[in-house]
Amino acid sequence: MSTAQNIYRADLREIFFCLFEQFRLGDQLGRAPWQDWGEDEVRMTITECYKFVCEVLGPLNSVGDAEGCTIVDGQVKTPTGFKEAWKKTYEMGWKSLSIDPEHGGQGAPYAVQVITEELFCGANAAFSMYPGLTLGASELVEVFGTPAQKKKYLEPMLVGQFAGTMCLTEPQAGSDVGAARSRAVPRGDGTYSITGTKIFISCGDHDLTENVIHLVLARVDGAAPGTKGLSLFIVPKVRVGDDGKLGERNDVAVGSIEHKMGINGSSTCVLNFGESNACIGELVGTVPHQGMAQMFRMMNGARLAVGLQGLGVASSAYLNALSYARDRLQGATIDRWKDPTAPRVSILQHADVRRMLIDMKSRVEGIRCLALKLAVHADRGKLGGPDAGYHLGQVELLTPLVKAYGSDQAFRVCETAIQTLGGAGYIKDYGIEQYCRDSKIFSIYEGTNHIQAMDLVGRKLAQAGGGNLMAFLADIARFAAQHAGHPTLAESVKVLARARDALQSTAMLMMGWASGGKLSLVPLAANRFLEMMSETVLTWLLLDGAVVAEEKARALPEGHPDAAFYAGKRATAIYYARNVAPGVMAKAEVLAAEEDSSLTIPDAGFATI
Amino acid sequence: MSTAQNIYRADLREIFFCLFEQFRLGDQLGRAPWQDWGEDEVRMTITECYKFVCEVLGPLNSVGDAEGCTIVDGQVKTPTGFKEAWKKTYEMGWKSLSIDPEHGGQGAPYAVQVITEELFCGANAAFSMYPGLTLGASELVEVFGTPAQKKKYLEPMLVGQFAGTMCLTEPQAGSDVGAARSRAVPRGDGTYSITGTKIFISCGDHDLTENVIHLVLARVDGAAPGTKGLSLFIVPKVRVGDDGKLGERNDVAVGSIEHKMGINGSSTCVLNFGESNACIGELVGTVPHQGMAQMFRMMNGARLAVGLQGLGVASSAYLNALSYARDRLQGATIDRWKDPTAPRVSILQHADVRRMLIDMKSRVEGIRCLALKLAVHADRGKLGGPDAGYHLGQVELLTPLVKAYGSDQAFRVCETAIQTLGGAGYIKDYGIEQYCRDSKIFSIYEGTNHIQAMDLVGRKLAQAGGGNLMAFLADIARFAAQHAGHPTLAESVKVLARARDALQSTAMLMMGWASGGKLSLVPLAANRFLEMMSETVLTWLLLDGAVVAEEKARALPEGHPDAAFYAGKRATAIYYARNVAPGVMAKAEVLAAEEDSSLTIPDAGFATI
Repeated sequence: MSTAQNIYRADLREIFFCLFEQFRLGDQLGRAPWQDWGEDEVRMTITECYKFVCEVLGPLNSVGDAEGCTIVDGQVKTPTGFKEAWKKTYEMGWKSLSIDPEHGGQGAPYAVQVITEELFCGANAAFSMYPGLTLGASELVEVFGTPAQKKKYLEPMLVGQFAGTMCLTEPQAGSDVGAARSRAVPRGDGTYSITGTKIFISCGDHDLTENVIHLVLARVDGAAPGTKGLSLFIVPKVRVGDDGKLGERNDVAVGSIEHKMGINGSSTCVLNFGESNACIGELVGTVPHQGMAQMFRMMNGARLAVGLQGLGVASSAYLNALSYARDRLQGATIDRWKDPTAPRVSILQHADVRRMLIDMKSRVEGIRCLALKLAVHADRGKLGGPDAGYHLGQVELLTPLVKAYGSDQAFRVCETAIQTLGGAGYIKDYGIEQYCRDSKIFSIYEGTNHIQAMDLVGRKLAQAGGGNLMAFLADIARFAAQHAGHPTLAESVKVLARARDALQSTAMLMMGWASGGKLSLVPLAANRFLEMMSETVLTWLLLDGAVVAEEKARALPEGHPDAAFYAGKRATAIYYARNVAPGVMAKAEVLAAEEDSSLTIPDAGFATI
Repeated sequence: MSTAQNIYRADLREIFFCLFEQFRLGDQLGRAPWQDWGEDEVRMTITECYKFVCEVLGPLNSVGDAEGCTIVDGQVKTPTGFKEAWKKTYEMGWKSLSIDPEHGGQGAPYAVQVITEELFCGANAAFSMYPGLTLGASELVEVFGTPAQKKKYLEPMLVGQFAGTMCLTEPQAGSDVGAARSRAVPRGDGTYSITGTKIFISCGDHDLTENVIHLVLARVDGAAPGTKGLSLFIVPKVRVGDDGKLGERNDVAVGSIEHKMGINGSSTCVLNFGESNACIGELVGTVPHQGMAQMFRMMNGARLAVGLQGLGVASSAYLNALSYARDRLQGATIDRWKDPTAPRVSILQHADVRRMLIDMKSRVEGIRCLALKLAVHADRGKLGGPDAGYHLGQVELLTPLVKAYGSDQAFRVCETAIQTLGGAGYIKDYGIEQYCRDSKIFSIYEGTNHIQAMDLVGRKLAQAGGGNLMAFLADIARFAAQHAGHPTLAESVKVLARARDALQSTAMLMMGWASGGKLSLVPLAANRFLEMMSETVLTWLLLDGAVVAEEKARALPEGHPDAAFYAGKRATAIYYARNVAPGVMAKAEVLAAEEDSSLTIPDAGFATI
C-alpha cells in the first residue's frame, strides 16, 4: 500500500442525524446571527469539507508520520505537502467558518465548526494542529488585543499569512503553570524584553507561513508569584512594522524538536526567547498580570478541540475496522465452527468482533453527541436571553468531559480497532496503529486528564452555587421520567436513572470530603468521577438519539434503507446503557468505600529500587 | 539522552518475595529432579541474569527500535549489536536453564525460567523473541522428533548455532489455522516437497545464526480439510547433511518484512516456500496429520511466554514511572495547592499519581504471581504422584489467563506509565512510549486474546469434567474462609469471596447457554469472563502475598527496612481487591442480563458507508 493514500472515513449520514434529527440544529438556523445559514448550507459545507479533507489532508497523514519534522538552518521543515495543504485550507476558507463576519469570517454556528474540526483532525491530526493553534491564538488577540494588535497580528492569522502558538510550558512548569520563570522587562517604549525557555510548544516553528506569532506567558519583573503574576505577550518570530511589513527576525530560537510516539507531522519545539537579549514582546491588550485569565477565556475552546481530535481519529479508526471486518473472511459461524467444510464468513459475523465494533461505535457516537451538545449550548448561550446562563453553565460543566473522556476513549477505541484487525492492525500498512500512536497525546496536552478532572470536581461542580450540576441532573431526570415506559428502551432508561442517582450521590459525597477533613480523597476520586459523569451523559445522549431514531423508524415506509441505520442507533444506545453504564454504579460503590491505600502506602513501599 | 542506554528495571526483592516467601520455592529445591538447585543458586542465577540483561540487552532496546530490521541481499539484517547479544546469551547458557541435563541443560525449576524470561523480555522484548522462538522450536523437536532429527536440528538449536521459527499463519489462515493451504508432497525418499506462503512469521529470517529451522504447518496432498489434516514439517533455511554439515540453501525465500508499530528489532516475515519447487521438508517424527496436536503440546509454553513478555515490559514501565515520580517536582501538596509560595513537591506526593502507581504495581505483581503459580503447578505436575493431575489441570486452566490478561494489562500499564510521565511519556527519550508500542502485539499473536478466551470457556472450563475449575474455585473458597477474620485484610477477603461466587455463577450460566440454545452468547461473553476470572485470581494471589507479608512484618525488628516493603505488599493487595475486584461482580451482573444488541444489530446498522 502506498503511503500517500487516504484512509480517512466519516459517516455523514450519522453526523447529519446528530445535527438535524437529534439536536435539531434547523431550529436555530435562518435567524440572527445565523441568517445566512440554512440546513442546505450546513449540509453542503460539511459535505464539501469531507471531500476536501479526504483529498487534501488524508493522503498526507502517513506521509507526515513517516517523514516527521526536521530542523534545517535553524527552522523547522514540515513534511512534504503540508505547505500546499495549508495554502488550500485557507484559500477554501475552512478556518474562518465560525469567525465573525466582521473579521471576514462566515459566522457559522459553533456546531458546524465542531464537525468540520472533527473532519480535519480525523483526516490528519498532526497537520490540523497548525491551523488549530493559529485559530486559538487569533481568537485570543481578537478578544483581548488592542486595535493596533488586531491589525498587525489578527488579520494575517485569519487568512493564514501568519500562524500562531501558545507558549505556556517550561521545564519546571508543566501542570504547575504558575511556576513559570520566563521574564518580561519593560523596555521603556511600551514593549517588553522577553527571556526564558518554553518546552513542548506544539507547532512552535515551521515553514508554512512567513511569520509565527507566539503568545507567551511570562512574569513582569516584580509581579506576584504563581499564576496571578503572569502576563501574556505577543512575541512574533519576525518583527512586524506598524505598516504590517515584516522586519528583522526577533530573538526567538528553536532549541530542538522532540521525537515522539505520534503526531510526527506536528513540530514540538523547545523555544528559547531572548538568548541574545533581543527578544521584543508586546503585552496582549494593555493591562499586565492578566495572562492566566486571558488564557482561561480561550481554554474551553482549546479543550473542546482536543476532544474533537480524539473524536475524529477514533471515528475513522472505528470505520476502518468495520470496513476490514466486512471484507475479511475467517472461520465459520459459531454453530459450524468445528466443520472445516463450512463456508468461511466475514469476521463481522463473529460475536466478539461485533462486540468490539458496537463498543467502538457507541463511544464514538456518544462523544460526538457530547461535543455537539456543548456546541449547541455555546450557540444558544451566545444568543443571550434568560436561558443564556443555563447554556453557558453547561458549556463550563461539559468541557472537561469532552476533553478527558474524549481523549481517553479515543485511545481505547484505537486499541480496539487494532485488535479487530489482528496482525493487520499492528503493521503500518493499514494506518490504524498510527491513529493509536497519534491519539495518546490527547490525554496529556492542553491540561492532562487529571487536570480536567480537578477542574470538574474542584471548580465546575460548585460553579453557580452548584446550579450548573443541578440543572444537568434535572435534565437527565426529566428525560428518564419521560421515557421510563418506552416500548424498546425502558430497561436502558432505568439504568440511566440509576446512573444519574449514583452520580448525584457521589458528587454529594465528594463535597462532604472537601469540607469534612478528607480533602485528599477528592483528587484520588476525581478521574473516576469524571468517567462516571461522562458515562452517564453518554448513556443519556445515546438514548436520546435512540428515542429520535425509533420515532423516525416508525414513520418509514417498508424496506427503506434508513431502517437499518435507525436500528443501529437503537442497538448502540442499548449496548452502551446495558454494558458500559453499569460501571457508573460500580465506581460509585468503590468510591463510597473511601478506600485510601494509594495514599497510605509508604513512599518506600512502592518498590525497593 | 543517548539511544544506547539501559532503562530496564526490575525489583529483585519483590521477585524473591514471590519465589521464596509466597510460593515457597525452597520447599521443592534440593530434591530430585532439582537436586542441584538450592535457594542460593536460584538467587544467584536471577541476580546474574538481571545484571546480564541490563548490560547486554537493555542498551539495545532503543537501538533495535530505531534501526529496525532490513533486507540485504535477500536476507534479514538485524539491528546493531543483536548478533553479539545472541552470542553472549548462548555462551552464558541463559537459554538452557530449564532444559533437561540430558540435553546439556541445567534442569532448573520452571519457576526460575519464568523469572529469567521476564527479565529477558523486559530488557528487550524484540531481541528476546529470537531465542524464545528457538527454544519453542527446539522443545517441539525434543518431544516429537526422531533421534536423527534431534541430532541434526535440536542440538544446534540448544547451543544457539541454529535458530528456530513456527510457521502457521497464511494470508487466508490467521485465527482460522485449519484453512492453511501450504502443501506437502512426498518426494519418495521420506522427505516432502513443501510449497506455500506463510505470513507474520516472527523472526522468520535473520543473520544471528548460520541456519534457521522452520517448523511449517502444511497439508499432505489428500489429507483431510481443517486442522485434522495438517502435518508439521522441519524446513531448514540451509539444508543439513546427516553429518551435521551445512549443504545448499533450501528453497525458502523472504518475500518481505513488515513495518510495525513496535518490536522493530524482531523481523516479521513473509516466507515463500518452494517458489522454485525445490523446498525440502521432513515430517516431524514419523506420523503425518499430527501437526495441530504437536503444536498444541507446545502452545502452553508459548502462551505463557507471551504473558511474560507483557509482564517484563509492564514491570519496567511501572518502575520507570515510579522513578520519574520520585524525581519530578511539580506543584504543592493538596492542602496548599493555591499557595504559590508553598514548596514544590515530587509528583509522588499527588494522590492521582499514587493511584496510577499502585494500580500499575498491583497489576504487575498480580500477573507475576499468576505466572509463577502456573510455573509451580507445572513443576509439581512434573513430579508425578497423586496430585499431578490437579497441578497439570491448573496449568491448563491458567494458561489463557496469563496470556490474555497478561498482555491486555501490559498495554494498560504502559498507557498509565505514559500518563504518569505526562509529556515526557510521549517522547522517545524516556523509552516508555516504546514499551507501549512494543506491548500492543502481545494481545494479538500466539492466538488473539479472544482465541484465549474461547480456549478458556470452550475447552478449559469443561476439562476433566469441570474438575479443574472446581478445584480452582475450592482453593479460593478455602483461602477466603481461612482469612475471613484477618485483622487488616478481612474486608478485602470478603470482596474476594464475592468475586469467586460471581465467577462460579457466571460459569454455570455460560454452560447453560451452550446447552440451552443460546450458544452465540458464549463468545460474546468470553473475553469478559476471562477478565473476571483473571481479576479473581489476581485478587486471591495478591491477598495471599499480603497475608504472608503481614506475618513477616510482624516478626521484623523495629525500624527494619523491609517494613515498608511489606506494607507496600499489603496496600497493593487491598487496592486491587477494593478497586479492581468489584468489577468482577459488575461484569457478572452485565452478563447475567444476556443483553445481545451486538448480535441483533443489523449488519448495515453499523454505518451507512
